[in-house]
Amino acid sequence: MRRRRSPAAGFRCIEARRMTEHRRRARELGLAPGILPPGPLNAITDVAGVRVGQVTVIAGEGTRTGVTAILPHAQNPFAHRVPAGVFAMNGFGKMAGVTQVQELGELETPILLTNTLAVGRAVEALVDWTLAQPGNEAVRSVNAVVGETNDGRLNDIRARGIGAAEMRDALAIAAPGPVAEGSVGAGTGTMAFGWKGGIGTASRVLPPALGGWTVGALVQANYGGALVMDGVPVGRLLGRYFLADHVAQQADADGSVVVVVATDAPLSDRNLQRLARRAMAGIARTGAAFSDGSGDYAIAFATHPEVIRAPEKRAAEARYAEWPNDRVSPLFVAAIEATEEAVLNALTMATTVESRIGGRRVTGRALPLDRLAELLARR
Amino acid sequence: MRRRRSPAAGFRCIEARRMTEHRRRARELGLAPGILPPGPLNAITDVAGVRVGQVTVIAGEGTRTGVTAILPHAQNPFAHRVPAGVFAMNGFGKMAGVTQVQELGELETPILLTNTLAVGRAVEALVDWTLAQPGNEAVRSVNAVVGETNDGRLNDIRARGIGAAEMRDALAIAAPGPVAEGSVGAGTGTMAFGWKGGIGTASRVLPPALGGWTVGALVQANYGGALVMDGVPVGRLLGRYFLADHVAQQADADGSVVVVVATDAPLSDRNLQRLARRAMAGIARTGAAFSDGSGDYAIAFATHPEVIRAPEKRAAEARYAEWPNDRVSPLFVAAIEATEEAVLNALTMATTVESRIGGRRVTGRALPLDRLAELLARR
Amino acid sequence: MRRRRSPAAGFRCIEARRMTEHRRRARELGLAPGILPPGPLNAITDVAGVRVGQVTVIAGEGTRTGVTAILPHAQNPFAHRVPAGVFAMNGFGKMAGVTQVQELGELETPILLTNTLAVGRAVEALVDWTLAQPGNEAVRSVNAVVGETNDGRLNDIRARGIGAAEMRDALAIAAPGPVAEGSVGAGTGTMAFGWKGGIGTASRVLPPALGGWTVGALVQANYGGALVMDGVPVGRLLGRYFLADHVAQQADADGSVVVVVATDAPLSDRNLQRLARRAMAGIARTGAAFSDGSGDYAIAFATHPEVIRAPEKRAAEARYAEWPNDRVSPLFVAAIEATEEAVLNALTMATTVESRIGGRRVTGRALPLDRLAELLARR
Amino acid sequence: MRRRRSPAAGFRCIEARRMTEHRRRARELGLAPGILPPGPLNAITDVAGVRVGQVTVIAGEGTRTGVTAILPHAQNPFAHRVPAGVFAMNGFGKMAGVTQVQELGELETPILLTNTLAVGRAVEALVDWTLAQPGNEAVRSVNAVVGETNDGRLNDIRARGIGAAEMRDALAIAAPGPVAEGSVGAGTGTMAFGWKGGIGTASRVLPPALGGWTVGALVQANYGGALVMDGVPVGRLLGRYFLADHVAQQADADGSVVVVVATDAPLSDRNLQRLARRAMAGIARTGAAFSDGSGDYAIAFATHPEVIRAPEKRAAEARYAEWPNDRVSPLFVAAIEATEEAVLNALTMATTVESRIGGRRVTGRALPLDRLAELLARR
Repeated sequence: MRRRRSPAAGFRCIEARRMTEHRRRARELGLAPGILPPGPLNAITDVAGVRVGQVTVIAGEGTRTGVTAILPHAQNPFAHRVPAGVFAMNGFGKMAGVTQVQELGELETPILLTNTLAVGRAVEALVDWTLAQPGNEAVRSVNAVVGETNDGRLNDIRARGIGAAEMRDALAIAAPGPVAEGSVGAGTGTMAFGWKGGIGTASRVLPPALGGWTVGALVQANYGGALVMDGVPVGRLLGRYFLADHVAQQADADGSVVVVVATDAPLSDRNLQRLARRAMAGIARTGAAFSDGSGDYAIAFATHPEVIRAPEKRAAEARYAEWPNDRVSPLFVAAIEATEEAVLNALTMATTVESRIGGRRVTGRALPLDRLAELLARR
Repeated sequence: MRRRRSPAAGFRCIEARRMTEHRRRARELGLAPGILPPGPLNAITDVAGVRVGQVTVIAGEGTRTGVTAILPHAQNPFAHRVPAGVFAMNGFGKMAGVTQVQELGELETPILLTNTLAVGRAVEALVDWTLAQPGNEAVRSVNAVVGETNDGRLNDIRARGIGAAEMRDALAIAAPGPVAEGSVGAGTGTMAFGWKGGIGTASRVLPPALGGWTVGALVQANYGGALVMDGVPVGRLLGRYFLADHVAQQADADGSVVVVVATDAPLSDRNLQRLARRAMAGIARTGAAFSDGSGDYAIAFATHPEVIRAPEKRAAEARYAEWPNDRVSPLFVAAIEATEEAVLNALTMATTVESRIGGRRVTGRALPLDRLAELLARR
Repeated sequence: MRRRRSPAAGFRCIEARRMTEHRRRARELGLAPGILPPGPLNAITDVAGVRVGQVTVIAGEGTRTGVTAILPHAQNPFAHRVPAGVFAMNGFGKMAGVTQVQELGELETPILLTNTLAVGRAVEALVDWTLAQPGNEAVRSVNAVVGETNDGRLNDIRARGIGAAEMRDALAIAAPGPVAEGSVGAGTGTMAFGWKGGIGTASRVLPPALGGWTVGALVQANYGGALVMDGVPVGRLLGRYFLADHVAQQADADGSVVVVVATDAPLSDRNLQRLARRAMAGIARTGAAFSDGSGDYAIAFATHPEVIRAPEKRAAEARYAEWPNDRVSPLFVAAIEATEEAVLNALTMATTVESRIGGRRVTGRALPLDRLAELLARR
Repeated sequence: MRRRRSPAAGFRCIEARRMTEHRRRARELGLAPGILPPGPLNAITDVAGVRVGQVTVIAGEGTRTGVTAILPHAQNPFAHRVPAGVFAMNGFGKMAGVTQVQELGELETPILLTNTLAVGRAVEALVDWTLAQPGNEAVRSVNAVVGETNDGRLNDIRARGIGAAEMRDALAIAAPGPVAEGSVGAGTGTMAFGWKGGIGTASRVLPPALGGWTVGALVQANYGGALVMDGVPVGRLLGRYFLADHVAQQADADGSVVVVVATDAPLSDRNLQRLARRAMAGIARTGAAFSDGSGDYAIAFATHPEVIRAPEKRAAEARYAEWPNDRVSPLFVAAIEATEEAVLNALTMATTVESRIGGRRVTGRALPLDRLAELLARR
């Protein structure tokens, strides 16, 4: 196993060997769902301060997994808490930290995404990391937030090929700027709609009259149904979808999706919970079946300076900014659209991944962009 | 005001005058969302035993409202309770009866849908009706379930033009068979996506290998966003959608939607709650903004004989049938698709409604089927 | 039926005949649960601005019911909304307005408490009242909040002996100051722990170092279990409690309790929901069984000027005060204690009520204060 | 550090040195809360099949912690799932596995209780254990359920003195029969109401006419308020309680409590969630403040053979037994009482624990049984 620094910021790949293919983002292919414009990077990092770090682990015959870290800002997140809300559209998942986010309406750690069986060590890593932050010398309680999907179709998940070291690395290298997408980080081994899934991201910016806020989404796409891309029923047209008898196995709808939504609007925790719910509408638009075995979660946080719960504000009566209920709807639309496009990016950026699990060779094929282009040309 | 019996079963119209136009169901127009086939009626009444009754109230210059009643079966619903689950995707609504359905997992009255300011009298009507049922002579507690959307754009809602009599009528005339759609019953004054909305219904039937169950949905569509019909971005193409600056007023996304889902599968209340959540994925696929002011609810119930909570089964340890978690996903897909198509039917069947509120003339225009046909021809 | 104005403000009794007995508040009897001191009135109206209005309806042989109205302040509650949270410890009840309070975190009407079968007309009354308030001429949506318990043991509830007029009266006569307790208003026909229940209220004031805030509670007590009064197992000692074989009928634990909690602390809606949950701990301390058929709800609101959602604050980004999570615990204790004492007051103030239902004479006996005094003297 | 097998089954102590004192269970002291009788062991293990295993870790100057494992039955819990429900009265905690229990209504692993910062490794341990069970060779998804409280007052929690080995040991030695209480297992370092807290357990048996079912509770008590023991305000009488100015530090109310409830009644997952809620009423009766920093959770499961979700029942339509809503109230009372008494046992059985954290000597003193006896003698 070799480790090398990838050229992009916030990304490290630990691998034996890795497939490469020319992939493009959805928008370059003409897929631009919704009505609002994206931000400059069309990524969750368009929300100022948000940082992403990813470690991809490709090792031996069967380990095809990784971790994706999202940090809300550059400060100590335990001290400078961001308000947050979480929603489980289908709670068949192992997301850690849910009840405390619901109770206190805040996030006190970065968010890690990884595979289902690595949640325990991701919690460990976040606890270690938090205890070690300068200023946290007296901290004795840490609500680690970890999302997961089950990459066991391509990853020999029982081999437990990712450890705390990779988790810490992802946190350490997190950076603003462009975000690696596709078969990377927590998306290394994921499948979506019968094709190779992965990490995807996108953003939306509201016009000044509606507040001018930015909303960004990042998804770990590992779910299924009948794929729809900006309205085009790609799954049906390519004959690969959940409940299509002849490919039921490949396009099994289970697996899960986790969406992380960030905004610079001054939203209360209650309205962030509502934003998280809307992320699931974005997932719905991609043709999700929200099947029994798909743990579908969203978590949303806000980074506006006047909603940050800084130590002094948590010690006494404080004043917080709040964007009102009556004006929140455009943010809802932004969250839906950013989530939908993030999934499209996950699919169009994901590269084919091969693996061998239990002596059986398995392949997660990338969505064929040439066939997709044909379908899009016809509409 | 005249009252007359409409030719269709389960439908009564109380009106001064009423628009007529030739309208067609979505499937006749080539819109057939999803992958599963509909039942014979493509209506919630494909679930054996389910009955629907509707009363339309068009009176004076401004009253354009009504009520839609859904009965799970032909027996006394207070005695023979159906398991049920309810979900609020956006709880800005006045649905009555929610917490008891959540707590006990059952429905003990029919469901009434009406306008926002008529919920009180709909509750009264259901209480009256329940107390009056043979066998209910000792009943002292009734959990009336009433859904609503705000038809105040077309209906002079402050005039309170619907009363308990109409509610009782809807219950009395409820019948199996085809269901009137569009600008009828609780959909008389509703708008959706800037066009005339209304009542719509659809169904799906699973193949025998997946259980062979039927799932039906009925919607009261009064919400908005950017309309998508089976993947076609009709709202954008026609230039009428939420956040499109020039028509923001017309296509205001608020208003609400209520979905009633019925199935003959032996689902537990927990799995019915999950089914209700999936209905919202169907709403999402139509381009819903799930805006702040849209109270978006779904309620699902099961009619399988072995899940009915009959009096003797509620008095002692009993055996109930249960379709397992592991096999429930196809039912989720069916609920999503039936809901999506029910909305399409509401729009394609709705007829233009004119009204005068506060001295101002208002018109809810039907979605133009000719223009829709053009758009569909091009895909 | 005669109507007369009672000597106390905010109270009207509509009656044929009414029992009177000398009753005392719990604290006069030496019952002072908890560790925090009460406010000057030891009532919910210790929270400045809160007003209570009650109408008692005693008519004919069997009507023994009423309504209790709680207004958060003297302004138009639809325009000047108070943040609020609601909790259902046991959702077997018909409380109206729950989901919107949860979604928006606010109250836009007064709260009415009444009997189970009168919820529909209470909703009607609140809608009427709201539409008629000056400034509400354009209002088309009203989230009426109505709590209820089932007074059908003493009240001929199927006779529907209370109407919208009484509801409106309760709203009209609401006033600050002392609150009538016991067999009045919505507590007229209620039972608790096998004795006559009713309306009770109490309050707690925090020391300045803990914020100096006031928390008040008002209960509609109609539930059961094995009564404990400030630690004394009165139910067991008097041989009257749920599951005691020989009096199972009398002390049936069903029936419900609704708690209204008010505070002048600047709490967010999230922390008000938490406060509402603590009210149920107060109910637990009285020996509640939280039985299947007891719908046990609490709703909490805050009246601090800087948390009021005034029209201008709901239209744009605003600043709100917030008491931090880290300092909220003393308020939780206050809510628990005020609720517990409010129940004790309901019992010690309730007077015996006689009735005839279906030809059968029924009596709700007041808790015997002489025997209670004996029990307390022995501890 | 030495490891030794304790004389009692299901208990192992890993320690340098350990305090011993003569302690007694609450019932031996005359404390017998409630009205229902306990089972033969007055422990959660009165529910047939339930097994408990505990490992106490006392090492070095500061490590005072442990783990408590609860297994629902002797079979593979992943294959033979028990229905379950979970409730967070105050979600300021890190319980793992919550959303999946809520979604699927079932438990697929044993339950581990430990300290706040050890949740990650407890999840790891449960995953390891589950993957290693015979028959689980193909398992790729595990919903580990782990509860925790923060024992950082007595345990040098940042030193992370407990590891996966101890977790596995607790699972391995789990046994039916008497359960060690007090300063053992996950209760080794806990405090409650300013005194040494710990593990406690109790049970209740219903009379045959009410079903004859057994309900058992086990608590990890680490919370505060003003201690009430079977109605006696011990906290106030001893001058040690939350918000008593002079001992505010010692009796800080934060810390958390986790309750595990087991029953042999055939309850649905919905009614088990209701049972879990009632456990919190038992906590309330002990004088809990339910303070901001106390994560208060309950999880309940049922072991009745006809509610077990065996593999064959999860693969097809099945029949399950269900105890009806209408007869569930006595079980609610049993859960309340068993929980209350379990806390009393935790306190009366807990032995004094000394520790040194960060160079500072700390002592968690056992509740003085002599003074308690005096207080009880006077009532």
